Amino acid sequence: MNGAEGLIQTLAKAGVEVCFANPGTSEMQLVAALDGAPEIRAILGLFEGVVTGAADGYGRMAGKPALTLLHLGPGLGNGLANLHNAKRARTPIINLVGDHATTHLQYDAPLTSDLDGVAAPMSDWVRRSLSAADLANVGASALQAAMRYPGAIATIIAPADHAWDNGGEIATVEAVNRPTFAGDPATAAAALQNANHPVLFLGGPTLNADALEIAGAIAAATGARLVTETFCARLQRGAGRVVTERLPYFAEAATEFLAETDVMVCIGATPPVAFFAYPWKPSTLSPPSASVVEYASARDNCQQALSTLADLLGADTETVTTQTRQTHDVPPGPLDAKRIGFSLANHLPEQAIVSDEAATAGLALYNITASAEPHDWLMLTGGSIGQGLPVAVGAAVACPDRKVIALQADGGALYTVQSLWTMAREQLDITVIIVNNASYAILNIELARVGVDAPGKKALSLLDLSNPDINWCDLARGFGLPAVRVDTAETFDAALASAMHESGPRLIEAVITPAHKRGP
Amino acid sequence: MNGAEGLIQTLAKAGVEVCFANPGTSEMQLVAALDGAPEIRAILGLFEGVVTGAADGYGRMAGKPALTLLHLGPGLGNGLANLHNAKRARTPIINLVGDHATTHLQYDAPLTSDLDGVAAPMSDWVRRSLSAADLANVGASALQAAMRYPGAIATIIAPADHAWDNGGEIATVEAVNRPTFAGDPATAAAALQNANHPVLFLGGPTLNADALEIAGAIAAATGARLVTETFCARLQRGAGRVVTERLPYFAEAATEFLAETDVMVCIGATPPVAFFAYPWKPSTLSPPSASVVEYASARDNCQQALSTLADLLGADTETVTTQTRQTHDVPPGPLDAKRIGFSLANHLPEQAIVSDEAATAGLALYNITASAEPHDWLMLTGGSIGQGLPVAVGAAVACPDRKVIALQADGGALYTVQSLWTMAREQLDITVIIVNNASYAILNIELARVGVDAPGKKALSLLDLSNPDINWCDLARGFGLPAVRVDTAETFDAALASAMHESGPRLIEAVITPAHKRGP
Repeated sequence: MNGAEGLIQTLAKAGVEVCFANPGTSEMQLVAALDGAPEIRAILGLFEGVVTGAADGYGRMAGKPALTLLHLGPGLGNGLANLHNAKRARTPIINLVGDHATTHLQYDAPLTSDLDGVAAPMSDWVRRSLSAADLANVGASALQAAMRYPGAIATIIAPADHAWDNGGEIATVEAVNRPTFAGDPATAAAALQNANHPVLFLGGPTLNADALEIAGAIAAATGARLVTETFCARLQRGAGRVVTERLPYFAEAATEFLAETDVMVCIGATPPVAFFAYPWKPSTLSPPSASVVEYASARDNCQQALSTLADLLGADTETVTTQTRQTHDVPPGPLDAKRIGFSLANHLPEQAIVSDEAATAGLALYNITASAEPHDWLMLTGGSIGQGLPVAVGAAVACPDRKVIALQADGGALYTVQSLWTMAREQLDITVIIVNNASYAILNIELARVGVDAPGKKALSLLDLSNPDINWCDLARGFGLPAVRVDTAETFDAALASAMHESGPRLIEAVITPAHKRGP
Repeated sequence: MNGAEGLIQTLAKAGVEVCFANPGTSEMQLVAALDGAPEIRAILGLFEGVVTGAADGYGRMAGKPALTLLHLGPGLGNGLANLHNAKRARTPIINLVGDHATTHLQYDAPLTSDLDGVAAPMSDWVRRSLSAADLANVGASALQAAMRYPGAIATIIAPADHAWDNGGEIATVEAVNRPTFAGDPATAAAALQNANHPVLFLGGPTLNADALEIAGAIAAATGARLVTETFCARLQRGAGRVVTERLPYFAEAATEFLAETDVMVCIGATPPVAFFAYPWKPSTLSPPSASVVEYASARDNCQQALSTLADLLGADTETVTTQTRQTHDVPPGPLDAKRIGFSLANHLPEQAIVSDEAATAGLALYNITASAEPHDWLMLTGGSIGQGLPVAVGAAVACPDRKVIALQADGGALYTVQSLWTMAREQLDITVIIVNNASYAILNIELARVGVDAPGKKALSLLDLSNPDINWCDLARGFGLPAVRVDTAETFDAALASAMHESGPRLIEAVITPAHKRGP
């Protein structure tokens, strides 16, 4: 048994079931070892950002890590942006990155780089094997590191000679248990009980249906608002689920949204801050006078923290306010974000998974779809666009029986457009909705917000995706996906209804006109 | 004047003419400052790998840096792979990366990462500004660092508040002179004169027509073979130019190629090593018995080093063997790499620029096109695929009067496929030839070379780009480029002839069948 086989067998035995891969020469022994592990499905991505983003989507839904297989420093570099998002989502991922043979590194061959340096910024844990036998030990430790509750990014650096040398062994992986919450709920309980306008600020592992039900009971008992982070890794919502409010994206809107708050208890989240700083605006969002209690962090057992707090407060889940199912009339006419939202709310099937990177359009869509059938909503946790399509790939691999909808702004979709091919190859049940406004609409807003009042032609050209317009149906077909382009509420609704009733990958190009491009 | 304006004005006054950009919110002031600098052309890339690769192509041809504009750690991360290639090419580039405002970093907002850590591995120089006034100083230093002969990667980290704060100033940039070569040619001269089978091993700044002519004279005087690195940043070749041999890619072929060598004098290159290590094969390529003289490094003034050596040897450029112009008959029939090469050799216009990432097909193309009109050949210096299309973009921006041909394998093209859109938007005079073999052909070869003799279905699926086949004409049209698909010698020749006689961007999908997919 060579080192590669020892590593892959170790991971397979410990329950790793999927490897998203973009290998090169230095990973050929690892590729061959995957052949010998029928437990692990291998899925090719044409670009490393697809690979790491798919592992993020998989980990969010499966609750355990996928393996990525990446080629040296530059290959890992291409995957960093979506590892950043995954790290912010606290998704379990094991990166397996091949390196030159240890004997070869001294020669500084063309593909040599500071691979450990590339790995560090977006990994929670990095280790390089010391021998063929050690490779499996590193793999076992990586799996434990990735399962640090609720999840972490573990990166294995595997020199090629450790993969091909004999002496591989299968290592044992010890189970990682969810931590026990040891915090005292007294301060949080007292703060909530004495407040006039309390907020429970929820993030990370509080956003599943069970934990949210306990949060709902606390809200009913104390009058607290339930507010989630703006960008959640995975939020369970829809009909029958507890109603939450989403913290607005723009700092001034968030400040106004929280203006009356006198007590904020944070569970699974840190106190809210602005996404970006702006000249002459504060970075923190809750009123300076509000009392902020950091009760449980995102690495704590937040469900237990909520239970403990609910018990102390005598909160009862019988009293929870839940969302009712509503359908919407879809006004006919030119398509806009609201009309997309109405159709989605009507047609989303039960247990659908939405990968949301719809950016400016996404906020309207999110609010309207609260009344849809129960579903999971996955968001852009780290702000690095190009996450949405790969996360949809990974979610579909993790949950083959659930419909996945990628709600995707055009600008962000272009960073990892190669995802469409993996959807086609694996015949994943994903409906991609490209919300095409032919611009980085958010940046047109941001330009004004940072104080640039009269941008010139050159500045505007850098925020514009037209000239030429991108034809998303052509791109989809080029990657092997059926596609349709619609620009009215009626045609969108028909296309969506059809997509929800059939299986397999497809793309709907939904053309809307953003506010800054509309006429008077 | 704010800090952003001070920086951009400093760079504009010092001669920076192009900014390849993919900005975000933290770069909005820098975008606005570009508006105020008519000397700088701003070009949008839809993905950061396009931006950094284009800066590489520009710098190789212009001999001075373009500016890149990138968004925080993840944005720079997406650009790392092509910065790796550019660093290996010693291309001058200035990266300008926005960061959160200094006051905002403490809050660990979602897009926060270790930006300095991301910058370090692929930069030769990194500095973070200390204030709005300091930003221009950092810019001036960055330009000097980028111009370290023959070029280097300088990365500026610009916190958003330093860009928007008043107090910006225009800094003076002192000129960076080419170094004077101080080495002694005596050892190299004696070694060459006493050798039976000497090789001049040439890289980096020795590969322009003038320096090669001196190398040719040395070869004529000493009987030395002129051998270039396998992957050169920029090689001037074709009719009337000095004939060189290219070191083979595969280690065993390179070893055989150099088997008789008893003396190797390296100028602008380090002694040749294998691209990858393989089990039971050596990493170094020249015979163990050969005497290796490292006469001048790639950061030396190699043209002066060659002149000094030629003078000592009494070598005379009148005696140089140059390439004669030859045209070729193109045998009709199914298209293959050789037939593509014959057509290219016939049709390449004088002063064409070839961006070569044709991978397995590229080696045949390279040899055949030696007899074309004089042209520049740009190669994959760092081995990270996805360089070819962006480098073509940058070369076309640097040299608007020259025809650019991107010879591009399909697998590599997919990493930075968004380049096609920038070609269309800027109406660059680029003919993209996608050599489509629907596989990572090189990896099918490598799998056997690392000792995997009977790969299974799963392993092979990770090296295969079919199922579904990618339709390159659809992709091109989706990005706004005209495209044609050909699979015979006759139709390729006609499409190429037409492309060479017209101006503007277009794509030719050249379908060939690789050896491992052909029938018996």
